[in-house]
Amino acid sequence: MTQRPDTQILDRVASPADLRRLTDTDLSRLARELRSETISAVSETGGHLGSSLGVVELTVAIHAVFDTPRDKLIWDVGHQCYPHKILTGRRDRIRTLRQKDGLSGFTKRSESEFDPFGAAHSSTSISAGLGFAVGRDMGKATGDAIAVIGDGAISAGMAYEALNNAGAEGRRLFVILNDNEMSIAPPVGAMSAYLSRLWGTAPFSDMRALAEGMEAALPAPMRDGARRARQLVTGTGSGTLFEELGFDYIGPIDGHDMGQLLSVLRAARMRATGPVLIHCCTVKGKGYAPAETSADKYHGVAKFDVESGTQKKGKGGPPAYTKVFGQALTDAAARNPDVCAITAAMPSGTGLDIMAKRFPARVFDVGIAEQHGVTFAAGLAAAGLKPVCAIYSTFLQRGYDQVVHDVALQRLPVRFAIDRAGLVGADGATHAGAYDLAYLSCLPGFTVMAAADEAELCHMVETALAHDAGPIAFRYPRGAGTGVDLPERGEVLEIGRGRIVREGADVAILSLGAHLSEALAAADMLAAEGITATVADARFAKPLDMDLIRNLSRHHAALVTLEQGAGGGFGAHVLEAMARDGLLDGRLAVRTMTLPDRLIEQASPAEMYADAGLTAADIALRVNEALGRTDANVVRLPV
Amino acid sequence: MTQRPDTQILDRVASPADLRRLTDTDLSRLARELRSETISAVSETGGHLGSSLGVVELTVAIHAVFDTPRDKLIWDVGHQCYPHKILTGRRDRIRTLRQKDGLSGFTKRSESEFDPFGAAHSSTSISAGLGFAVGRDMGKATGDAIAVIGDGAISAGMAYEALNNAGAEGRRLFVILNDNEMSIAPPVGAMSAYLSRLWGTAPFSDMRALAEGMEAALPAPMRDGARRARQLVTGTGSGTLFEELGFDYIGPIDGHDMGQLLSVLRAARMRATGPVLIHCCTVKGKGYAPAETSADKYHGVAKFDVESGTQKKGKGGPPAYTKVFGQALTDAAARNPDVCAITAAMPSGTGLDIMAKRFPARVFDVGIAEQHGVTFAAGLAAAGLKPVCAIYSTFLQRGYDQVVHDVALQRLPVRFAIDRAGLVGADGATHAGAYDLAYLSCLPGFTVMAAADEAELCHMVETALAHDAGPIAFRYPRGAGTGVDLPERGEVLEIGRGRIVREGADVAILSLGAHLSEALAAADMLAAEGITATVADARFAKPLDMDLIRNLSRHHAALVTLEQGAGGGFGAHVLEAMARDGLLDGRLAVRTMTLPDRLIEQASPAEMYADAGLTAADIALRVNEALGRTDANVVRLPV
Repeated sequence: MTQRPDTQILDRVASPADLRRLTDTDLSRLARELRSETISAVSETGGHLGSSLGVVELTVAIHAVFDTPRDKLIWDVGHQCYPHKILTGRRDRIRTLRQKDGLSGFTKRSESEFDPFGAAHSSTSISAGLGFAVGRDMGKATGDAIAVIGDGAISAGMAYEALNNAGAEGRRLFVILNDNEMSIAPPVGAMSAYLSRLWGTAPFSDMRALAEGMEAALPAPMRDGARRARQLVTGTGSGTLFEELGFDYIGPIDGHDMGQLLSVLRAARMRATGPVLIHCCTVKGKGYAPAETSADKYHGVAKFDVESGTQKKGKGGPPAYTKVFGQALTDAAARNPDVCAITAAMPSGTGLDIMAKRFPARVFDVGIAEQHGVTFAAGLAAAGLKPVCAIYSTFLQRGYDQVVHDVALQRLPVRFAIDRAGLVGADGATHAGAYDLAYLSCLPGFTVMAAADEAELCHMVETALAHDAGPIAFRYPRGAGTGVDLPERGEVLEIGRGRIVREGADVAILSLGAHLSEALAAADMLAAEGITATVADARFAKPLDMDLIRNLSRHHAALVTLEQGAGGGFGAHVLEAMARDGLLDGRLAVRTMTLPDRLIEQASPAEMYADAGLTAADIALRVNEALGRTDANVVRLPV
Repeated sequence: MTQRPDTQILDRVASPADLRRLTDTDLSRLARELRSETISAVSETGGHLGSSLGVVELTVAIHAVFDTPRDKLIWDVGHQCYPHKILTGRRDRIRTLRQKDGLSGFTKRSESEFDPFGAAHSSTSISAGLGFAVGRDMGKATGDAIAVIGDGAISAGMAYEALNNAGAEGRRLFVILNDNEMSIAPPVGAMSAYLSRLWGTAPFSDMRALAEGMEAALPAPMRDGARRARQLVTGTGSGTLFEELGFDYIGPIDGHDMGQLLSVLRAARMRATGPVLIHCCTVKGKGYAPAETSADKYHGVAKFDVESGTQKKGKGGPPAYTKVFGQALTDAAARNPDVCAITAAMPSGTGLDIMAKRFPARVFDVGIAEQHGVTFAAGLAAAGLKPVCAIYSTFLQRGYDQVVHDVALQRLPVRFAIDRAGLVGADGATHAGAYDLAYLSCLPGFTVMAAADEAELCHMVETALAHDAGPIAFRYPRGAGTGVDLPERGEVLEIGRGRIVREGADVAILSLGAHLSEALAAADMLAAEGITATVADARFAKPLDMDLIRNLSRHHAALVTLEQGAGGGFGAHVLEAMARDGLLDGRLAVRTMTLPDRLIEQASPAEMYADAGLTAADIALRVNEALGRTDANVVRLPV
């Protein structure tokens, strides 16, 4: 892997049109170069290397066979799109991946016409592809739709709904199942077992030749690989799940064999009249030994040394919130046998791997299935257990109806551990945990907490587990804690009670969650201007601490709320409660500081919060503005 | 059907324990009596008759064979639970179904220990059942879990996720597929076709006898019907989709043949070690000729005459919002070939049946698949079409992540027609359209409208279709409009611009949506007290009309917002915007009037709004309170 191959073919490919003029042999060589280029780029940026390496040949083959961008190529999740970006005019910016002002780590409509439908969350590609297929059939200037979806992503209910509907519609549509037997964690669920069985019983060496008619339809320069593709099935009832759903099924084929790929894609493109599923087996991390031999196949990597594969370790420092949560929950589980936990295919991302090591029978990985996961947790709660449903803020959106209908309406004590609340850095706007405060605080009977630091998170774990009266959620940000001492065991907090962190006389800053440190920094800045600020940590977005709010309102000239979330969340509910209480009728200046009403693009979290106007300096400015201080050094704030 | 059979057996069944002492012959007789009682009760109350009649025998058989309530019987959706309610101690209240202070039209935990997991939205039962099964395995005092799910409901992605996970878990769990080949509309999708095929190729008369070992295991009084049950499959790879997912499959069996039902359920209960799917074929409306012969099988009926089946027609009056929407959209579709529409199994509930009659190729019924439906619509929009995604407020919760991730983040012009916004009447809290203003208004780039009357709805249909800049939603309530004249064709409204409906001097009421009539009635009441009120219709929850809000704020002593939605919605965003604008810093009294922070139980919508504290009198009271008028005749408002 040390010497980079000659890149002269890749240098000649400015766009997929160039690639279509290459011979099949050159396409294979191009794939090798593309793999090298991908490894080199990601070594400088970090990112989703494993998935991208798994689809290098597939990327080349699809662009060679289909007429992109007229044909719509939709990468599910989109984190495997780095080779695609290199081939579609973005090679010169590929080393800005996932960085501020750089290329997105996912497909993105605004970035290229070769990204017809952006992604980042999984399992959306078939639905979108069907939309394009209908658009074509209704006369829009669009060609074929090709959805590439992984074996983990296809197990989500949404993908099943799409297969079900596409099968019934019967329109020409290509779904390429990229089966690498591993989503982020090893995939779970019956679907995964089924795919393994299908693969296992039909090894490549054993594959039957293509049916006669099929072979006849293949283009003249027939590749050897094609003969190894097992079947092009057009009948029904032949046994695969996909055929039962109305798809023609081709496969499994070797996704690293350019000959097979080109032959099958060319044949499928030539012959398909309805929906076709092409089952393509790939290896995550393919072609880069450190990735192939790593347990997680370099799913997501930091910058690394290409030669050795050694990743640049983050500096030491405080433990990550995720880890603090995982450890606190594991400790609690040791004390109470009713504590159990649910993850939707993210055991290590959520920190539940820590608990799973010690209590494997009490941690349930339901796969990419947030809807089921939430209602399953509701069932566990109804059965008398203490379920903790650990789902990132952005992914909990997938289970929202279940949160409302199965949990909140039944007042079932499901505990939601909401990681990645607020802005999340390199994953960008698609992964922002911006809306949970808004979409949860409107629900009757819900208790919603946010942790100001990692010690608070320990308290909230205990508080949630002690709370059997109804649903309760606690949110916390991505990344490292603040470095405070951790308690041996968290305290059970009084529900709906905040705390004063710093006393002042002029203004009050009522902060919820991890922006407390910014509030305190702002108070320091204000002190330098001669303004003393009371800083309070609300702890609870719901129920609100009305005593605290009344106190702050009555004893200060201004009240500013602060949160790591969109409008309509904590601050909005504070204002509604204050209005109800008559607290807004007098001459109190009030402001809410939230994420602005626009998307914040990827950067470091600190840069993103600066972009969002939520730095300590922004807070101090807002306080000044609320106080009517329009001195020369108080600049106009962005909205 | 005219003579009611002797009800002496049913009279002796106060709870399922009594039923377990009956002979199989008496159980058949009980089923006949139960059917009659169900018809009689629903003729007085209206409700979901067809589904309940389809499961009469199944209800009796499950309670006879399983040990409810220790065994957990979970009815998916729950609208087929009337016979279950009659058998589980609620016969004396069955004629209060769906009425104020009466029995819920769905299963409900707070109503009976025989309802271990409530429902109303579909496809949740398998997830909940798996939760109970795990609870049992973790030592909780709970027996078996039995989920009964229809062929429509099982096609939702959530059910697939649950089957997938349950199959992988391998725990003992019973899923009874109640296959009546019709959800609310005739079911669509490949899954439905698959089930039909399965049924069609294995007619009852043709069924193979049970396998030898299976027969030997059956209890002594072997019923003839049992011999007709096709198979108890324990191997894998035998071909049904459910087996592929790791379930044992039994069926299809005749769900109206008590002998078959009892034998199969007894055998399954005795022998199952893992998850079992029992495929049970039933006829919606079974045993009541007017229902069986009706096109919709009396899915949801008004009160009716038992003899003739004639339903009590609603009085005439203004057209329903649903119908106005359907007609306006159809007219627009006639003018523009790019207009297309999506429903998730509710063509007639949404009014899209009107458009489907005229433009069948442009109306897409995706089945119970809101997640796919929303992203499919996003794909249609990306392809250049003008998709209108018509989903009830409460069901759009199912597609929330898709609304955020696939539509809002990509600024795709999907039009959301949100019917059943606000409180909905007999379906109760589970169907309340309470949260859409909160969960949509927090999303960047979204435009959110609410119709004050049916003419406004026509304008909003046109406005939405003309808006290609990003996503746009319009909400409107259940039931009849106000009777205003309808425009020939709606006008395209200016985005983010409200209107003054009535001018006053003292206070301002800023109303969003269909509560405008109450605001005007409140203004009349206030006028009688000598207070003149300006009444404005905001039209847009997002973007807000800041000019209007500034105007109202500056020229009145109090501003009260009004909406048919939960806190965190329109009023909350108005307050945040006013805070940002400095409008709350002076001596303006402000209040938001929203649904209270608790569930409002079923009743007529008017009764529900009275319960919610949102009548005209409540509004007038709130205005008085805001003005600080605490006269004797101003009573304290409920919160």
